[in-house]
Amino acid sequence: MKVGVIGGSGYIGGELIRILLGHPDVELTTVVSRQHAGKYVHKVHPNLRSYTTLKFSPLDVDYVAKTCEVVFTATPHGSSKDLVPELLKSNLKTIDMSADFRLKNPQDYPQWYGWEHSNPQLLSMSAYGLPELHREEIRKADLIAVPGCMATSTILALAPPVRDNMIEKERIVVDLKVGSSGSGSEPSIASHHPERFGGVRPYKTIGHRHIAEVEQELDQLTTQPVMISFSPHAVNSVRGILATIHVFLTQETSELDIWKSYRSFYKSEPFIRFVKDREGLYRLPDPKVVVGSNFCDIGFELDNHVNRLVIFSAIDNLVKGAAGQAVQCLNIMYGLDEKTGLKTPPLHPA
Amino acid sequence: MKVGVIGGSGYIGGELIRILLGHPDVELTTVVSRQHAGKYVHKVHPNLRSYTTLKFSPLDVDYVAKTCEVVFTATPHGSSKDLVPELLKSNLKTIDMSADFRLKNPQDYPQWYGWEHSNPQLLSMSAYGLPELHREEIRKADLIAVPGCMATSTILALAPPVRDNMIEKERIVVDLKVGSSGSGSEPSIASHHPERFGGVRPYKTIGHRHIAEVEQELDQLTTQPVMISFSPHAVNSVRGILATIHVFLTQETSELDIWKSYRSFYKSEPFIRFVKDREGLYRLPDPKVVVGSNFCDIGFELDNHVNRLVIFSAIDNLVKGAAGQAVQCLNIMYGLDEKTGLKTPPLHPA
Amino acid sequence: MKVGVIGGSGYIGGELIRILLGHPDVELTTVVSRQHAGKYVHKVHPNLRSYTTLKFSPLDVDYVAKTCEVVFTATPHGSSKDLVPELLKSNLKTIDMSADFRLKNPQDYPQWYGWEHSNPQLLSMSAYGLPELHREEIRKADLIAVPGCMATSTILALAPPVRDNMIEKERIVVDLKVGSSGSGSEPSIASHHPERFGGVRPYKTIGHRHIAEVEQELDQLTTQPVMISFSPHAVNSVRGILATIHVFLTQETSELDIWKSYRSFYKSEPFIRFVKDREGLYRLPDPKVVVGSNFCDIGFELDNHVNRLVIFSAIDNLVKGAAGQAVQCLNIMYGLDEKTGLKTPPLHPA
Amino acid sequence: MKVGVIGGSGYIGGELIRILLGHPDVELTTVVSRQHAGKYVHKVHPNLRSYTTLKFSPLDVDYVAKTCEVVFTATPHGSSKDLVPELLKSNLKTIDMSADFRLKNPQDYPQWYGWEHSNPQLLSMSAYGLPELHREEIRKADLIAVPGCMATSTILALAPPVRDNMIEKERIVVDLKVGSSGSGSEPSIASHHPERFGGVRPYKTIGHRHIAEVEQELDQLTTQPVMISFSPHAVNSVRGILATIHVFLTQETSELDIWKSYRSFYKSEPFIRFVKDREGLYRLPDPKVVVGSNFCDIGFELDNHVNRLVIFSAIDNLVKGAAGQAVQCLNIMYGLDEKTGLKTPPLHPA
Repeated sequence: MKVGVIGGSGYIGGELIRILLGHPDVELTTVVSRQHAGKYVHKVHPNLRSYTTLKFSPLDVDYVAKTCEVVFTATPHGSSKDLVPELLKSNLKTIDMSADFRLKNPQDYPQWYGWEHSNPQLLSMSAYGLPELHREEIRKADLIAVPGCMATSTILALAPPVRDNMIEKERIVVDLKVGSSGSGSEPSIASHHPERFGGVRPYKTIGHRHIAEVEQELDQLTTQPVMISFSPHAVNSVRGILATIHVFLTQETSELDIWKSYRSFYKSEPFIRFVKDREGLYRLPDPKVVVGSNFCDIGFELDNHVNRLVIFSAIDNLVKGAAGQAVQCLNIMYGLDEKTGLKTPPLHPA
Repeated sequence: MKVGVIGGSGYIGGELIRILLGHPDVELTTVVSRQHAGKYVHKVHPNLRSYTTLKFSPLDVDYVAKTCEVVFTATPHGSSKDLVPELLKSNLKTIDMSADFRLKNPQDYPQWYGWEHSNPQLLSMSAYGLPELHREEIRKADLIAVPGCMATSTILALAPPVRDNMIEKERIVVDLKVGSSGSGSEPSIASHHPERFGGVRPYKTIGHRHIAEVEQELDQLTTQPVMISFSPHAVNSVRGILATIHVFLTQETSELDIWKSYRSFYKSEPFIRFVKDREGLYRLPDPKVVVGSNFCDIGFELDNHVNRLVIFSAIDNLVKGAAGQAVQCLNIMYGLDEKTGLKTPPLHPA
Repeated sequence: MKVGVIGGSGYIGGELIRILLGHPDVELTTVVSRQHAGKYVHKVHPNLRSYTTLKFSPLDVDYVAKTCEVVFTATPHGSSKDLVPELLKSNLKTIDMSADFRLKNPQDYPQWYGWEHSNPQLLSMSAYGLPELHREEIRKADLIAVPGCMATSTILALAPPVRDNMIEKERIVVDLKVGSSGSGSEPSIASHHPERFGGVRPYKTIGHRHIAEVEQELDQLTTQPVMISFSPHAVNSVRGILATIHVFLTQETSELDIWKSYRSFYKSEPFIRFVKDREGLYRLPDPKVVVGSNFCDIGFELDNHVNRLVIFSAIDNLVKGAAGQAVQCLNIMYGLDEKTGLKTPPLHPA
Repeated sequence: MKVGVIGGSGYIGGELIRILLGHPDVELTTVVSRQHAGKYVHKVHPNLRSYTTLKFSPLDVDYVAKTCEVVFTATPHGSSKDLVPELLKSNLKTIDMSADFRLKNPQDYPQWYGWEHSNPQLLSMSAYGLPELHREEIRKADLIAVPGCMATSTILALAPPVRDNMIEKERIVVDLKVGSSGSGSEPSIASHHPERFGGVRPYKTIGHRHIAEVEQELDQLTTQPVMISFSPHAVNSVRGILATIHVFLTQETSELDIWKSYRSFYKSEPFIRFVKDREGLYRLPDPKVVVGSNFCDIGFELDNHVNRLVIFSAIDNLVKGAAGQAVQCLNIMYGLDEKTGLKTPPLHPA
């Protein structure tokens, strides 16, 4: 199929291009970047040197519509909401990487993002692009809202015990450790190497926007409202998120009970790996060994001292947290094997 | 005063030597290392080249007793408990860096450390070397048990709200991020650079030994038992611990209430810095800006969404988490200004 | 074809397994590790979890011969020389990752490696596995000696100007910057995270063993002897080598002359990329953007101030410097497209 | 003495403040930053929290002259040349961190910096602030031009063998590895964490401006012109420079000859350490173990294979490469012990 990427110059855009160039059923025809129009793609994404002779195009919806049937929009939060309706009108299936179509309740946008949604009618027709929870909707949708990276790791870790009412729903502590690529390709003091290197820096400790989509999704699995305590930290790595989730059990629960909850929820999901060994350095999830892949590694420990369940989930924020998950959605929309184009194993060590 | 270090070849030993060499009231006469006896100290601690011509001595308690009046024992957990009584018998004041005299209840050793204490009578005479909580005991003691690094950051962050009964005492989540120097100078697969670099690895997620001393200390401040949920992570830095502590408030509490609790507890403590600004990259604690110093930086955020208080505390694990705190104790024992020898500011950036 | 790996538990072994599992013409039947026999491969190589259910086998040449037609030996320097003859006798084509068959002159082994070669007759029948220089020999050989990682980056950078007599042959300065994976999977003080992190450490500044193979290979391209000044440095990365090669021109030479030399030497080599742009952060080679791939990126600058040519070459030490180059040799031996199994692009950023 | 810093918000400015606050003979009265005037110094330099209550002042030469007798100008290259004459007119001794007064020949400015010098008459009265070469001039000067960081490490490593005519003077290869703090506190794509982390990136491979001062200084030591081949690389660290200098000997030379050259040149220099042991991880210089100190560690290896001398020199670019060296000059100007305020040992590990 003919595919385009709008917003191809950032890190998520680059990752989409990388994956799509290796996808056997995709012809990547168009990559839009206003800033870099006319420049070779590999000048901005140096890893792709010798992989493509594509150049960035300016934004021209008609041209995109002529050259593509489906398009990924890796455009900034707040600008997708105005661009996507145009694409849909041009009969382009759209997979949007921004937050603009993730929240179902239009009131959530002023609350969490600070602006009114200009096209609220599209919220109900978009599918939240988390295949493990919304596969059937994704299959039928013309508009996919790809989840946020931290939301992905959090929801996937929590969905089984929330659904199975195993945990206290107002004491859910999500402590995240995030690599610098999550803040994008634009230099800033927060990602300035001398400031970031070797530190562990809390940021957006309260009120992070991903809480909105995490609670929206988990609320659908249970009757009691889910309340998330969510605090990320910037660490000295480039790719990867580790979500450490501390929750408290509501009743006596064995390891086997927890296993069953996860196994029944995820059955044979192609990108969920359970990582819980008795020994070994990587006996629990570590983002280091998922980098470059679409896996979400999930593991847990049961702490009888305080009746606590500690759940770990590790993803590559640019893959399962963005571009890989988007391509997984594409595969579902087109009836392909979900792993198509997403089979490359991670590197170790790296 | 004449001072010795036993166990001078590891990272804590090296840090003691570095600080003691710059301490105006200390003459460092003896540094013991069985493994390196006869070798120049700076061959093992390359940063000290040109600072000292001392050589490592073999372990000989008589010699130590002749050349020192006070000695730091940076010997392994489990071996201090047999060495320290000999030192005390030789009239050496002893500041022990191991866990062997931290716990007051002899039964805690089999439970948390897996061995019976051979000298339980010493437990009641040792002072737990956390000046902010035990200054008067330290002043009078002949034996100091210097707290564990993660315990230090956790106790200092939690003491005020625990004392003031502001938080739920069985839902205290301590999520720690720890640099590689905390695992010591002995190479291991867990600290092998290719395995450690760029990752975030959970370890000892449940049952960490420092829980014992944290609960012991916090229990003294309140009537209800304190139950700690404690999980460290290995991150890609060398020095520094960030403890992120998620707790839930028991009643309506303002930022000002919390400030008051901390201010009243720590008053003019020389090594507690409150770090809570409205803006700036380092508006909350980050271990990156305490490295090399004896500070414990403490800050917090109040999360009304879930009635959560998030407390951050950052220390250099080898300084306030070990050698610096030990020297602070020494200063107290000898009636010196507590900051003596501990005034060097951290570096930024580094 | 049926393929085996002997010595599958180290970093080079793991990388061979990763690449071979994704190779469409390879069936990986056997992975030998004495230390880990019986254990699942993914317990040692955590990135391969869910990619294979293979277990490590003990070393049994008969079993290997029954299950494979070609075998990679990722065994230690000095032990391959005794194992490989056995494999050849069993009619196994062998691709050896060690240094034991790289040097053609048996006298070089006592000089550079400190031992006599037990099977010197094999040296003349082995092909030096650098396709860009020895493609025809590799095609016909039953035994391939895969070059050293630093030797690969150095030879590929120098071959054109050496062949074309453009540079002084006794003033060739090769200054290398090397990631920690190059020192292998065994913990050591040199690769201990607290010691390696953030430093730049010279090691084997003189007399590095790779000099022997570099001079052997370059001497074949010219009449004057080539003398290499070769000094590596350990830097704070895991994968990747940057060789910075400073040479002095023997006559007036333009950028175009140099381009021509490289272009004529490498024509359409599939894994040589020329990286020399006028602008951009990655206008010259950086190992960061070849990690995970089999590329050798080559670029240069001409310094008229001192009549100097500075050549840069960047590889992933575990891929083009080891496992990838070995698979490239396999492809040549079996008449396959050389890129088979080696097409995955690098990641950026990572 | 009363001291001021103009340009106090960058990394060099911050380092000056850190050192001056700990200097027993200095009263730091004024810190100027146009951008941050009115803000507390510790809001910009978070390591200095609790060390000072100083605020940044706007630039007002009269005020500086009233509150200081000596001032450090950490102002951008090209702007110092116009500010410094004003300061001198106000009878302020001036220690300038920029390049504007380093070069003695006014013609060098258009050639290397691209602008005409507006106050060329000051070039002859300024002292090049490298105490090991210009102590007497520094003692008497009112204007010090503090050397560039890479120039410092290069000149100190090369001065002895150049003076003693031991090496070929047109084949001097200086290959530098530099931490990210050397590029300053302003975010840029080159220092963006995702781009800098884990890479080794050549930059300014030819024509680096520090060549001008290196050749100027070395030419004074010998009759033949010295020609420098100078190429830096950006590595994954924050502080520190390692200069690896490859030179070729002009005659038979023993290790002892080289030792003698260095010993006679540097005698009892307080900040030169010779690092050349037979064994140990840090047997040669590594910037990792000078960070935070004013040392220049120098070591070498003799490579008989190619008649090469490899010299290593390691400094902290912000200390001996900038602020520390500037304070060393201050100490000389005021007849103080040169180590005053500069005694803090480096950390290890860190």
